[in-house]
Amino acid sequence: MKLLEERILKDGHVKGGNILKVDSFLNHQIDVNLYEEIGKEVYRLYKDSGITKILTIEASGIGLACVVAKEFQVPALFAKKNRTKNIDGEVYAAAVESYTHGITYTIIVSKKFLNPEDRVLIIDDFLARGNSLLGLVDIVKQSGAALVGCAIAIEKGFEEGGAILRGKGIRVESLAIIESMSEGKIVFKNQS
Amino acid sequence: MKLLEERILKDGHVKGGNILKVDSFLNHQIDVNLYEEIGKEVYRLYKDSGITKILTIEASGIGLACVVAKEFQVPALFAKKNRTKNIDGEVYAAAVESYTHGITYTIIVSKKFLNPEDRVLIIDDFLARGNSLLGLVDIVKQSGAALVGCAIAIEKGFEEGGAILRGKGIRVESLAIIESMSEGKIVFKNQS
Repeated sequence: MKLLEERILKDGHVKGGNILKVDSFLNHQIDVNLYEEIGKEVYRLYKDSGITKILTIEASGIGLACVVAKEFQVPALFAKKNRTKNIDGEVYAAAVESYTHGITYTIIVSKKFLNPEDRVLIIDDFLARGNSLLGLVDIVKQSGAALVGCAIAIEKGFEEGGAILRGKGIRVESLAIIESMSEGKIVFKNQS
Repeated sequence: MKLLEERILKDGHVKGGNILKVDSFLNHQIDVNLYEEIGKEVYRLYKDSGITKILTIEASGIGLACVVAKEFQVPALFAKKNRTKNIDGEVYAAAVESYTHGITYTIIVSKKFLNPEDRVLIIDDFLARGNSLLGLVDIVKQSGAALVGCAIAIEKGFEEGGAILRGKGIRVESLAIIESMSEGKIVFKNQS
């Protein structure tokens, strides 16, 4: 997606340790018009797939999931990191190792909101090692719903997450795939 | 807001310990069309206030903040709970006691994204004891920005948060205020 790639080049910053900072427009401060364009592009990619639910994980996926869900006119659903008293009843749960936070936590989704009739699209802002997405895939599997695919804003193509997911036969659409960012120079994979 | 009150009556559930479950449409699964109506109502209430930024706190405020920000055509910004390696540079920080999670944590906002020229509207899905909002108010104050007010989806009017905030002279607009919910019967405050 040209618009997103241009914005990454303009406002993204590469930091040591392979960190790409896009906090001015994607995952701390949010450019809601860019989000809307991302939502439209995801809709274009998956509009014929009979999606019934958009699934993401807190926190930074939630805004994108809402905007995408608006395009599809279906509910958004976000997996919670397990520390709340306020989810009752039965939940689907999966373990997720967080590279960013250096911990492993449990993510949960209430069983009320995913069932075998659902056709699920998973959304997230980033795909790197793929741990969050694999946790969400696990939850979709537990529910018996059909996993239609994943849509990601930015994939770090030089990390293994994309290959792992695609290797499982999962459709993964990343709107910008970074092939390399050594010495601060961002190179995108040509997807056209 | 009639539409929200009706939805709470239809799909909300009162649990022991003064818990109102609205996880089927507001803060786990999300009805994005309801969100859009909430966004329009918040815009109607604050449209003449020169808002330059929408501020919320992760996680469940983020979706609402994005939808509201879209109406105002300004950026959304969410305070992060302090456990990430990915925020660099200087941050505003405030302590927040979480009743729901039974812990105190630090919330942070990068100094890059709030400054004295900003006019800030704070958004959240719930107002009960007011701890999250007071943390956000503190951060706005540290930044030197003008706090225009707060907009909340559901206020528990029988808890003290609303009175504390309004007692500080802060404009607080809650789209549904629950006066009582004893014995499972939800009574709203008449705001018309």
